[in-house]
Amino acid sequence: MSSTFHGHKLHISVFGQSHSEAIGVTLDGLPAGISVDLDELQSFLNRRAPGRNEWSTKRKEEDVPEFLCGLMNGFTCGAPLTAVIYNRNKRASDYSAFQSVPRPGHADYTAMVKYKGYQDFSGGGHFSGRMTAPLCVAGGILIQELFRKGIRIRARILSIAGICDVSDFTDSVSDKSFPVVSDEAGEKMRSAIRDAHEEGDSVGGIIECVVDGVPAGIGEPIFDGIENQIARLAFAIPAVKGIEFGAGFAVAKMRGSENNDAFTVIGDRVVTETNHSGGILGGITSGNSLVFRIAVKPTPSISKVQHSVNLGTLQSEELKISGRHDPCIVPRAVPVAEAIAAIAVADYLLGVS
Amino acid sequence: MSSTFHGHKLHISVFGQSHSEAIGVTLDGLPAGISVDLDELQSFLNRRAPGRNEWSTKRKEEDVPEFLCGLMNGFTCGAPLTAVIYNRNKRASDYSAFQSVPRPGHADYTAMVKYKGYQDFSGGGHFSGRMTAPLCVAGGILIQELFRKGIRIRARILSIAGICDVSDFTDSVSDKSFPVVSDEAGEKMRSAIRDAHEEGDSVGGIIECVVDGVPAGIGEPIFDGIENQIARLAFAIPAVKGIEFGAGFAVAKMRGSENNDAFTVIGDRVVTETNHSGGILGGITSGNSLVFRIAVKPTPSISKVQHSVNLGTLQSEELKISGRHDPCIVPRAVPVAEAIAAIAVADYLLGVS
Amino acid sequence: MSSTFHGHKLHISVFGQSHSEAIGVTLDGLPAGISVDLDELQSFLNRRAPGRNEWSTKRKEEDVPEFLCGLMNGFTCGAPLTAVIYNRNKRASDYSAFQSVPRPGHADYTAMVKYKGYQDFSGGGHFSGRMTAPLCVAGGILIQELFRKGIRIRARILSIAGICDVSDFTDSVSDKSFPVVSDEAGEKMRSAIRDAHEEGDSVGGIIECVVDGVPAGIGEPIFDGIENQIARLAFAIPAVKGIEFGAGFAVAKMRGSENNDAFTVIGDRVVTETNHSGGILGGITSGNSLVFRIAVKPTPSISKVQHSVNLGTLQSEELKISGRHDPCIVPRAVPVAEAIAAIAVADYLLGVS
Amino acid sequence: MSSTFHGHKLHISVFGQSHSEAIGVTLDGLPAGISVDLDELQSFLNRRAPGRNEWSTKRKEEDVPEFLCGLMNGFTCGAPLTAVIYNRNKRASDYSAFQSVPRPGHADYTAMVKYKGYQDFSGGGHFSGRMTAPLCVAGGILIQELFRKGIRIRARILSIAGICDVSDFTDSVSDKSFPVVSDEAGEKMRSAIRDAHEEGDSVGGIIECVVDGVPAGIGEPIFDGIENQIARLAFAIPAVKGIEFGAGFAVAKMRGSENNDAFTVIGDRVVTETNHSGGILGGITSGNSLVFRIAVKPTPSISKVQHSVNLGTLQSEELKISGRHDPCIVPRAVPVAEAIAAIAVADYLLGVS
Repeated sequence: MSSTFHGHKLHISVFGQSHSEAIGVTLDGLPAGISVDLDELQSFLNRRAPGRNEWSTKRKEEDVPEFLCGLMNGFTCGAPLTAVIYNRNKRASDYSAFQSVPRPGHADYTAMVKYKGYQDFSGGGHFSGRMTAPLCVAGGILIQELFRKGIRIRARILSIAGICDVSDFTDSVSDKSFPVVSDEAGEKMRSAIRDAHEEGDSVGGIIECVVDGVPAGIGEPIFDGIENQIARLAFAIPAVKGIEFGAGFAVAKMRGSENNDAFTVIGDRVVTETNHSGGILGGITSGNSLVFRIAVKPTPSISKVQHSVNLGTLQSEELKISGRHDPCIVPRAVPVAEAIAAIAVADYLLGVS
Repeated sequence: MSSTFHGHKLHISVFGQSHSEAIGVTLDGLPAGISVDLDELQSFLNRRAPGRNEWSTKRKEEDVPEFLCGLMNGFTCGAPLTAVIYNRNKRASDYSAFQSVPRPGHADYTAMVKYKGYQDFSGGGHFSGRMTAPLCVAGGILIQELFRKGIRIRARILSIAGICDVSDFTDSVSDKSFPVVSDEAGEKMRSAIRDAHEEGDSVGGIIECVVDGVPAGIGEPIFDGIENQIARLAFAIPAVKGIEFGAGFAVAKMRGSENNDAFTVIGDRVVTETNHSGGILGGITSGNSLVFRIAVKPTPSISKVQHSVNLGTLQSEELKISGRHDPCIVPRAVPVAEAIAAIAVADYLLGVS
Repeated sequence: MSSTFHGHKLHISVFGQSHSEAIGVTLDGLPAGISVDLDELQSFLNRRAPGRNEWSTKRKEEDVPEFLCGLMNGFTCGAPLTAVIYNRNKRASDYSAFQSVPRPGHADYTAMVKYKGYQDFSGGGHFSGRMTAPLCVAGGILIQELFRKGIRIRARILSIAGICDVSDFTDSVSDKSFPVVSDEAGEKMRSAIRDAHEEGDSVGGIIECVVDGVPAGIGEPIFDGIENQIARLAFAIPAVKGIEFGAGFAVAKMRGSENNDAFTVIGDRVVTETNHSGGILGGITSGNSLVFRIAVKPTPSISKVQHSVNLGTLQSEELKISGRHDPCIVPRAVPVAEAIAAIAVADYLLGVS
Repeated sequence: MSSTFHGHKLHISVFGQSHSEAIGVTLDGLPAGISVDLDELQSFLNRRAPGRNEWSTKRKEEDVPEFLCGLMNGFTCGAPLTAVIYNRNKRASDYSAFQSVPRPGHADYTAMVKYKGYQDFSGGGHFSGRMTAPLCVAGGILIQELFRKGIRIRARILSIAGICDVSDFTDSVSDKSFPVVSDEAGEKMRSAIRDAHEEGDSVGGIIECVVDGVPAGIGEPIFDGIENQIARLAFAIPAVKGIEFGAGFAVAKMRGSENNDAFTVIGDRVVTETNHSGGILGGITSGNSLVFRIAVKPTPSISKVQHSVNLGTLQSEELKISGRHDPCIVPRAVPVAEAIAAIAVADYLLGVS
C-alpha cells in the first residue's frame, strides 16, 4: 500500500518528492475511451496550485501535467495513464537546516526514524503538500467522467479560524477564488488568515464536500463501506486530522428520534426527509447526497520561533522557519477534497473488471 | 474487500448474520506460537456482550467463541484461526415487518437496493451490531500479544448525550462496568440513557481510545498512514459517523503556534511537549501515545413511532420498533474501539512475511 | 494473502487443518441471489471425496458442508458465505512420528522451519490435501452460476504414470468414476496405479482443464492476465508442480508459423483456426476455449522405506509411512482443477462492485 | 491489479506503451538506504535491450532509465522510486495496418475487444515485449540488494527449437552474449534461429532460472506460496506459455519413491539429497535452490504470409509483417526471468512493514 492505492477497480500510484526531478501519478484500471479535457483539468489543478493569492507560498510552479502514456487523442487507451509534473522551481537549500532539527508539526522527525537519514528532507520530501498535485490529476480526470454519469462533486471552506460559512451549501463555489458561499464570511476568514500571517502564524479550518447523484447501493459492509473508503483516502491529504459524515460528531448529542432520517417518497423515489446520515446507511449509499467534512490543521510551517531538538546532539534548539509557506492551506485543499471524493466514488463505479 | 480486511500482514474475514447459524471470524497471517488466554479473551468479549446492564438489549447471547482451527494447546499454529459464535437466542420473527418497511437509520433500505430482496433482513442481518463480536474476538487476541510487546490499548466513554467525562484519561477503566474516569459524570450519563429509554428514545456519544507504547516509525505515507488505517477500520463499527486524531476537529480553530507539538528531550528520547498530533506525523507514529476519538450515533432502533415507506406499495407507513435494543450502544462499543485499534497496530507489527 | 485469495471481486478464505475441529471456506463478494443447488454441489464434492475407490485413502469423510451463513432458502444473501466441514474421522495418532522426522516430499520440514514447532503436524495440518475440499465448495458454487451464464468447465486425467488419454477432449467425463475419455487408456492407468500401490509406491499424472464459453476480453495486461490468475490459483492445489496453457511447453519446439493461430470468421464471429494459445492472447481471453494442464506429482506418502532426518538429534533415520493414503491423487484432483478454473473466471465475471 | 503488482511488501506499477512518450516503473515499498549501482543496473538492462545481436530487432533503444524520484545519491530514500525510459526511436507508422487486421499470436484482437478501438495498437502498445524493460529496471535493483543478502539469481537458455543445453547449470552465464552453459549447444541454437530468420519464421525455447541462497521458511500456504507468486509473475512476460518447478512436468511419469527428495544432514544443515521439489515444499522454501523453467513461444511476428481477418469488414485478409522483430526472443528474455524471480523473492524478504 503506502503510496499506492489499491482500490476495487482503480490502482493509483503517487510518486515524487517536493524537490525531486518530477512528481506524478499512475492511474491504472480506467477503462479505455474516457475523454479527458485537458483545459478543464488544468483549471481544476489551478485551484490547488501554489502562488495563486496574496498569502499562499511564493513558490511558483505551473503544475502542468505531462502525460507519458495512457492517453491518446484525448481519450484513455486502457493502458495505465501516467502524468508527471516536472519540478522547475526547486530551492532545496531552504531546507538544509531541518535535516538535523525537525520542524514541529511536520513529518521530519518521524521520517528520520523510519528512513534512518536516507529520506529526502527537502521541502518535506514525499510528505510535502505538493504531493496533492498528482492526487488532483487523478481526481480531476475522474471528476470529468463522473460528471458525465450525473455525479457532481463540490467542496467549500466551511470554516477558517472559527469563522463559519453559512450552513446551506446549495451550489458549487468552485469558480470563486475563495470558495465559500457567503462572501461576507469569506472576507472575515481572509482577514483572519492575514492577521495570522502578519504574526508569523497560521490558521486551520474545515472543508465540506458534497457528492450529488451517486446511485443508491454503492459500498460494501464492514470494512469497505463508502465511509471506510472516503476516510482512508481523506487522510492521504496532509494536515487532515478528522473526518465526519452527515451529522458527524454532532450525533453524539442527538437523540435517535432526531438523528434518524425518516423515509418518504418523492415521485417514485424513496428518499429521506433529512440527511443526517450523509447519504450512507450501513456503509452503502442511500441515493441521497454524500456529505463529509474534514478538519485541516493550521500549516505547521510558521515563522515564529519554535522549540525543537537537534537530533545529532540531542540538545534543545530554537527553530525559525523562513521558507515559502501558506499561512492557511484550507483554500488550496478544497479541490483536493473533491479529488479524493472522486477517487472514492469512481473506484466503485468506473474501472474495468 | 467488503467483509474481508486485507491488511499489510493480517487478513481478517468477518462472517455471519444476526440470526444465521453462526457468526465468526477468520484471522489469517498471525505467526505461529502466539499465546491466547481464553479466559482473558472471554472477559474482553463480555465487555461487549449484550444483556449486561439495565438498558442493554434483552437478547441473551453467551458470546463464547468456539475455535474451529488455528489454535492448538493455547497457541496459534500458523494456520488461519477461525472462531465461531453460534447464534442460540434467535428470534427472527421480531423483524419480519422490516423487510418491506425499512427502519430509519438502519441499513434495511440500502441493503434492499443492493441485494434486491435476497438479503437477510432479520436483526439487520450482516449489518447487525452483533458483527462486532467477531471483530472483538480478533482484536482481543491481538490485544494480548501487543500487550506482551509493551503496547497497551484502552478506551473509555468520553461523552454521552453531551455529558462529558473529565479530559484526563490517565489510566484504563476497562474493569469498570461503565467505563468512564469520573464516576460522577458516569452517573449523569446513565441517567441520560435511562431518560431516553423511558421516552422510547436513544442517545449517542463519543469514545476515546489511547494506544501507549507503539514504537515510532510505524505507518506509510499518503494512502497508508496509521490514520488512514485506523479510520478505515473505525467505520467497520456500525453507528460510527466521525473519527478524529489528537486535537482533531479542534485544530480548525487553533493557530499553528498552538497546535504544533514542540520537540524536547527526556532522557535520551525525543518526545513532544504536547500531543495535539495524536502521536502521528505524516501518517507515521512518533512514539507518543496514539489518540483517537469516534462519534457514535444514537441507536437507530427506538420505540417511538417513525415515518417510513412500504417498499412494495411506495405508500408512507408509520413504524414502531418493539424488538430488543440498547438505548445507547456507546458503552458496549468501547471494547470494539480497542479491538479495531489493536487490528490497526498489529497489522504493521505482528504477522508473518 | 496466504490462505486468503484477494481477487478482483471475490475474496476466498480457506481455513482448517487435516485434524482440526473443522475445515471450511468463506466466500465473500458474491452478489445476492445466486442459486446454490446443494445436491449438485454434493455430487461435485463427492468426486473429490476420499474413500471413493479401491486405492484411495481409507479415511472416510462424508465431506458434507454445513452453511453457517450467507445462504438463505437456496440463494446467496450477499453476506459472506461460510461453509464448514466438521472433521469426524480423525486419527491424529497416525502422524505423531512425523513431528520430529519430516516425511520426504511433504511440507513437514518447511512447516517446522516456518512455524517453529507450533504447527499442527497431524496429517499435514493446513498443508493437507484435505484443504482442497473447501476449495471445491467455493468452486462448486461458482461452477453452477457460471454454467447459467453459458460457461462450462470440464477437466480430465490426461495421463497417469506416462499413460496418455486420447488427445481429443470433446466432452465432459465428469460422470465417470475415472474421468478419462478413453476407458481403455483409463484401464491401463488404473493398472499402473494398482502396481504402484502393491509396491508401496505412488504415481503422478497430468490433468487437463477446458473452459468453454468465456467471453472475449476478460483479463488484464502484465500482472493480471487470465494466465497469471489461473497459474496463481493452480498452485493452491498441493502436489502441482507445473502449469501450461494451450500448446504449453510444446511451443518451445514450434515455429511461429506453426504456433500462431490464424484468425478466420465463422458466421459473424472472429475465431482462430487452431487454439495453440489456449484461448488467451496478451493475458486476455480471445473467446476460444481456455485450455490448461497441470502436472501433479506422485503422492509423497508411500509405504516404502525412505531416508529422513530426526530434527531433534540431526541423525539420519529411516521412515516408513503406514497411514491411509492414495497411491495416486490425480483422479481426486480433477474436480479441484475445475474448482480453481471456476474461481479464476468467476473472479472477473461475477461478484459485486 | 492489472499492470500494478500488489505484493506483500512491494508495489510495482508498470506503465507505458511501445510508442508512447515513455515507459517506466514505480517501485513502492522498498526500504530507504538500499544502494543502487547504476552501471551494474545498466549492464543488466543491456542484456535485455534490443539491437544487441545479429537477429534481434533493428529498433535501437538505449534503454537508459532516468530516475524521477525515490533515489538520492545512489540510495533509495524510502519514497516510491520511479524510473522512466523515454521512447526515442518510434516508428508508429509500421503498425498502422494492424489496427484493423489483427496479427496472429499477438494481443491485437483481444485488445480490440477489450478496449473497443481506443487502445494504442502501435507496436503492441502496452502489450509490447518492450514493457519488460521496466520490469528489468525493478528486478535489476532488487537483484543487487538480494545479492548483498547472499541470494544469487541466474538464468540461462535451456533449449531453443528443441536444441538443449547441458543439464547441469553450475554457474552463472550472464556475462555471455548468448547465455548457455555449452557454447557448442549455443552455436546450434543460433544456427536454428538463423535458419528460422532466413525463412521469415521464428523459434521458441525454454529458460531455466535458479535462485541460490533463499533461506528456508519463505512463502505462505495455499494461495500464496513461492510457486503461486513466481507463477503469477512469470506470466507478466509476454510469450510465456508454461512454468514448472523442480522436476516439473516430469513428475507426471515419476514414482513417489523417485520424486521424493530424501532428507539428510550436511554439517548442521538439513538438506535434501536431490532437488526434484525445486526448493519448495508446501509452497514454502526448503533452503535448497529454487529452480523453475518457463516455456517461451516463438515470436508471433514473422514475415511469412499469415491468415487474418479485417475486423471492419469481417473479410479474410492475408497479412505480411515487415516491421523490426526478433526471430527468437528467448535470449533477451533470460534477464527478464531473473527480474521476475528477484521480484518474487524480494517481495517476501525486502520491503518495509
